[in-house]
Amino acid sequence: MTRLFRPNVVCMAGYVPGEQPRGGGFIKLNTNENPYPPSPKVLSAIVEAVTDRLRLYPDPMTTAFREAAASLHGIDPSMILAGNGSDDVLTIITRAFVGPGDPAAYATPSYLLYKTLIQLQDGRAVVVPYSADWTLDLSALKVPGLRLVYIANPDSPSGTAMTRNRIVEILQAVDCPVLVDEAYGDFADPGCHSIPLLKDHPNLMVSRTFSKGYSLAGIRLGYLAASSEIIDQLVKVKDSYNCDALSQAAGVAALGDQPYLAETRSKVIATRTRLALALRALGYEVPESHSNFVWATAGPPAREVFARLKERRILVRLMSYPGYPEGLRVSIGTDEEIDHFLETLREII
Amino acid sequence: MTRLFRPNVVCMAGYVPGEQPRGGGFIKLNTNENPYPPSPKVLSAIVEAVTDRLRLYPDPMTTAFREAAASLHGIDPSMILAGNGSDDVLTIITRAFVGPGDPAAYATPSYLLYKTLIQLQDGRAVVVPYSADWTLDLSALKVPGLRLVYIANPDSPSGTAMTRNRIVEILQAVDCPVLVDEAYGDFADPGCHSIPLLKDHPNLMVSRTFSKGYSLAGIRLGYLAASSEIIDQLVKVKDSYNCDALSQAAGVAALGDQPYLAETRSKVIATRTRLALALRALGYEVPESHSNFVWATAGPPAREVFARLKERRILVRLMSYPGYPEGLRVSIGTDEEIDHFLETLREII
Repeated sequence: MTRLFRPNVVCMAGYVPGEQPRGGGFIKLNTNENPYPPSPKVLSAIVEAVTDRLRLYPDPMTTAFREAAASLHGIDPSMILAGNGSDDVLTIITRAFVGPGDPAAYATPSYLLYKTLIQLQDGRAVVVPYSADWTLDLSALKVPGLRLVYIANPDSPSGTAMTRNRIVEILQAVDCPVLVDEAYGDFADPGCHSIPLLKDHPNLMVSRTFSKGYSLAGIRLGYLAASSEIIDQLVKVKDSYNCDALSQAAGVAALGDQPYLAETRSKVIATRTRLALALRALGYEVPESHSNFVWATAGPPAREVFARLKERRILVRLMSYPGYPEGLRVSIGTDEEIDHFLETLREII
Repeated sequence: MTRLFRPNVVCMAGYVPGEQPRGGGFIKLNTNENPYPPSPKVLSAIVEAVTDRLRLYPDPMTTAFREAAASLHGIDPSMILAGNGSDDVLTIITRAFVGPGDPAAYATPSYLLYKTLIQLQDGRAVVVPYSADWTLDLSALKVPGLRLVYIANPDSPSGTAMTRNRIVEILQAVDCPVLVDEAYGDFADPGCHSIPLLKDHPNLMVSRTFSKGYSLAGIRLGYLAASSEIIDQLVKVKDSYNCDALSQAAGVAALGDQPYLAETRSKVIATRTRLALALRALGYEVPESHSNFVWATAGPPAREVFARLKERRILVRLMSYPGYPEGLRVSIGTDEEIDHFLETLREII
């Protein structure tokens, strides 16, 4: 039957998510989950929504959630689109803008899913490399007929963030929509956030997720902020009921508990600072992170260290990008987890 | 910015889901939700899963769910793919098989989403009309290069079901994959179910949902049964984490409580029989339903009756298909709801 699939689907490798071990006993520092639990108010809101009403379809337009997100960002609810995780948002956007043969650009090293999404549309991937100082050469975006640009800000695996002025330069350099993926935005300096740019830049789209800052990777919720003209078209592309009733309730509660977010963010940032210093002291190069992970290169062979850590039941992410040194992306765990990771690393290297 | 969208997206109307009124006080007989609550065991399983573990990503391959579904159907877990509702399954399939200009066929009148999904891929819709006795003229499927066929069985809005032998005739009439959408399969005679055909028909795919029989439209869960070769390719197309942790827990619990499903199914079928007889007595034509709704045509002008029912806070679905009489699709409610609907209808007409 594979002869009947679209050739681009058969030929592609598919995105491989970070390992999710089913057995316990691992210290998971490999998929940038938040080490702290979700807000108790969020867990209560979910439990309250587990009623007989689950027999009904959820609100297809996630009205209450859009109002809450719009209020947080000071924009109109018509400028918000909710997704089944921000991956769903990225999928919807790619399907809306990129057709077969259409060029779409993404920075590298960055989130590997962008390439997969372009391949699924049979589009043409345009790669914009980061330089050694983690800036982008915008001349690489001068591609005729470019349909879409993906920029993760902060980026993964580097953890680095571009200032809002740098984002404006990208928006002005192209004649197409630019998706700024702020999955890690909750851990960044607010001066890097792009939603305030929406009022002056109609080609900007900004995605957010509840998987990182809000500790809710398990419920699948993300959203896009963009002009209402863009959102209106994207609504036609999304599945009608892409967000379930429980994630909608969780999202409203999570947005409503900003003090909890601020508290876990502070803890993560403090641990991140300590981890980066410790890794640099061990000889690693670690760029300044604005995320909930750090990117360690130039130390002992990453592949070997990765394997030895895994033997000791510590999972980090080994990442390879052509033209860049292989490295280890280490998610920020609790202080205890990071202490154990550092002790084990010192034994290994 | 709309000039930058794919032209097929800008030109299409988009799927319009049935109305989900946010205020209360409506009798909802318009979106084929189950009038009975989910199994208490399912609600307990969801609540038990609302823990700090929601900070973690869910199992991307929904391993426990696949095992439970495979066991129920007596097939291998590698033959199951879970989706964020069966709409997600339909989206994944369409993206995998249908590219721009590719012909894809669906029966009509049927689920309007099939056409939307083909439009989103910029494919070419091939319409296969039902005849007056709700059978399909298979010669309409003789289209060169046909990539995919969608058949809802039982169908909506007719509620009618084809026997397994009729499905075999379709599978043999084409040289492409056939998706048999069994969203309403839980209310049908098991002799209509197609999963037993998988072992002999590699071009068959069968989708199921938890939104109807299992009363779980709010959690978004569906699945596909197909050959493992087909599933392996579809995994590349789906979002990595398309099913959240709570719906996975709910799905396993729901599949494990077959006595509850049997009980609600019996109640729905008894009410369905009574409603069809009452509507026929009022002069409507109502085909034999194998679903949780009935399709009423040939009575007083459907549009007017629909509006008057809505004034009285009863929502049914008014449906129009070119070449077919306009009709009302009435979901099976509780006995009290259907009594109230029938009383109100008698006053109106």
